[in-house]
Amino acid sequence: MTERKAIVLLSGGLDSATALAIAQHDGFRAHALSFRYGQRHHIEVDAARHIAQRAGVEGHVEAEIDMQMLGGSALTAAIEVPKGREAADMAEGIPVTYVPARNTVFLSFAVAWAEVLEADDIFIGVNALDYSGYPDCRPEYIAAFEAMANLATKRGVEGQQLRVHTPLISLTKGEIIEWGVALGVDYGMTRSCYDPSAAGEACGECDSCRLRLKGFAENGRSDPAPYQHLAAA
Amino acid sequence: MTERKAIVLLSGGLDSATALAIAQHDGFRAHALSFRYGQRHHIEVDAARHIAQRAGVEGHVEAEIDMQMLGGSALTAAIEVPKGREAADMAEGIPVTYVPARNTVFLSFAVAWAEVLEADDIFIGVNALDYSGYPDCRPEYIAAFEAMANLATKRGVEGQQLRVHTPLISLTKGEIIEWGVALGVDYGMTRSCYDPSAAGEACGECDSCRLRLKGFAENGRSDPAPYQHLAAA
Repeated sequence: MTERKAIVLLSGGLDSATALAIAQHDGFRAHALSFRYGQRHHIEVDAARHIAQRAGVEGHVEAEIDMQMLGGSALTAAIEVPKGREAADMAEGIPVTYVPARNTVFLSFAVAWAEVLEADDIFIGVNALDYSGYPDCRPEYIAAFEAMANLATKRGVEGQQLRVHTPLISLTKGEIIEWGVALGVDYGMTRSCYDPSAAGEACGECDSCRLRLKGFAENGRSDPAPYQHLAAA
Repeated sequence: MTERKAIVLLSGGLDSATALAIAQHDGFRAHALSFRYGQRHHIEVDAARHIAQRAGVEGHVEAEIDMQMLGGSALTAAIEVPKGREAADMAEGIPVTYVPARNTVFLSFAVAWAEVLEADDIFIGVNALDYSGYPDCRPEYIAAFEAMANLATKRGVEGQQLRVHTPLISLTKGEIIEWGVALGVDYGMTRSCYDPSAAGEACGECDSCRLRLKGFAENGRSDPAPYQHLAAA
């Protein structure tokens, strides 16, 4: 068991911190991979570093990637992040916060690192329920990526099977939080907000904050992360 | 015809310069994409810039990507590039110059840019004959990548079909050069060497130089690119 390595994509958010705890609980020696990709804030990556340290990962890479060609997303450019009613109205279709091909780029780096580490397992905290508008959070996308990756690499050619694990893909936010709490995840260290304050406090009103707060509320828990103010439910 | 945009991966080498000329000849408005990814030299990227300018592309992005997690390749780390007899002996198996998941990472960025530009065509100058040892140059890999990409994006969900064009995939180096010459490619601007001098002269002895020189020799042509010295045939 202890010889199995896994790459875990770690954004610093609630989902990826839970995915990391699951990978370690499943007996993998975790190697965390985070990205700086032109976010307007580095609070997430700082959170990822703290989470990785506390989890005692085997290694943590913070890769700087230049996505200057992406003008189209609220998370990389200067588009206003939707809040409140506007965020709630986004439930249909693909949200403005969708970053083109983000998971594909992130998973591709994970495949590269897996090849170097001789690892055959990648964990990603995607969720198809809460993020049904994101094409690259769907199970059929993950299956296609896995098939592609097994043709892309030396290890694949040699007959090793790479697997992309998505333990959260069909869970509600409340279920994710319950699983994470059971595994000892400190959600006070995680950051999910699309538009935090300079001090790292969540806005409480963006799509991501609302989903997260709803998840804690469903379980009768309060979110230990810092907020500027909380939206009415 | 003039409204069709294509992303062309442009390394500055012979193959990608030819792929760019083919894309333009096929009527696409080309957007060139190059990467700085920890190469030990920037001569290739400089060549890419000159080729893109001369070709009159619509846009050119030079993306800086950090592949610090890749310790395993001669093209990103301090491993000696094989030359002469040693290079010739590499014909079997996967060469030491293979960069893990490189085409997957490059194509992923291309998919992201295609989504933003509303383009449905990507050109990549991979070749399955000369580079049979590279898993990510095979037709079955390209087909799997295309299938994945069509599930990854907003455009894919909306029913647009993304296509990865590989016009060189089954050609010999000599055939590639003949096609490029017919389309007016100036091969004196291209750089293929794995280990060039500081002045940008090719070594003439690495695997890439030998393949290239053999291609010109097959056609009874001489390579217009600068060399330090030429290996015996």
